[in-house]
Amino acid sequence: MECKQTLEANQGDVDKAAEALRLQGFAQVSKRSGRETKEGLIEAYVHTGGRVAAIVELGCETDFVARTTEFKELAHDIAMQVAAMGPEYVDKSEIEEGDSRPAAQVSLLQQPFIKDNSSSVEEVIQEIAAKVGENVRVLRFSRLALGE
Amino acid sequence: MECKQTLEANQGDVDKAAEALRLQGFAQVSKRSGRETKEGLIEAYVHTGGRVAAIVELGCETDFVARTTEFKELAHDIAMQVAAMGPEYVDKSEIEEGDSRPAAQVSLLQQPFIKDNSSSVEEVIQEIAAKVGENVRVLRFSRLALGE
Repeated sequence: MECKQTLEANQGDVDKAAEALRLQGFAQVSKRSGRETKEGLIEAYVHTGGRVAAIVELGCETDFVARTTEFKELAHDIAMQVAAMGPEYVDKSEIEEGDSRPAAQVSLLQQPFIKDNSSSVEEVIQEIAAKVGENVRVLRFSRLALGE
Repeated sequence: MECKQTLEANQGDVDKAAEALRLQGFAQVSKRSGRETKEGLIEAYVHTGGRVAAIVELGCETDFVARTTEFKELAHDIAMQVAAMGPEYVDKSEIEEGDSRPAAQVSLLQQPFIKDNSSSVEEVIQEIAAKVGENVRVLRFSRLALGE
């Protein structure tokens, strides 16, 4: 019982430490956000059946990070998100005046992430940015759907 | 010697017959060109290294043709062509006034086919159209290159 309490207490500490690290990570991401993203990847995703596909340019700061598994997976997931969810803008700041549709519908970064609806695409990107220690940005995307 | 001459003569006939069939095929393609291309495929190609990619919409008349190997390969080759050769227009008819660059450089259909420079992309498409017996058209494409 005592042991369990200790474990729980420790778990609490671990949670706090993780949260502190997470916040520190985000703080570092904010500092980094001015840095240029000249490296990165162009990734494509074709949905089964070949009726919709997307390409995305995901930028980072170094070729080293562009070649990590985390970054490649993120590029793949974002291309899949674009193909599936058909956003029209990268960020809500680009939404045209008079377009009253919610950002969570039309702008990629504000959309719920298709692999985990509890996070936005932006939050998922910031988590990876914190993990790889570089600024990570969606620069452009393009999507084609048959007959649209 | 006599035998060789006969073979050569036959080869001449075969060539003529092939040419006649080819022309007939093109004639049929011309007749078909008014028919709608509502089916087809969206295909993507990412070049090794992930620094350039393209998506293309290749239309045909029926889903049956869209699922043939010839059609799928053509869609793949055209996506690769767009990624590698960076055309800006589908057809020369779209080249903007004042753009003096040659069609073989800037418009996809007039570019030499990268897998066989002796044909244009348009000729390769017409050959496949003749083979599958349907109108086949590149409807749209999009290309992204890192940092461009």
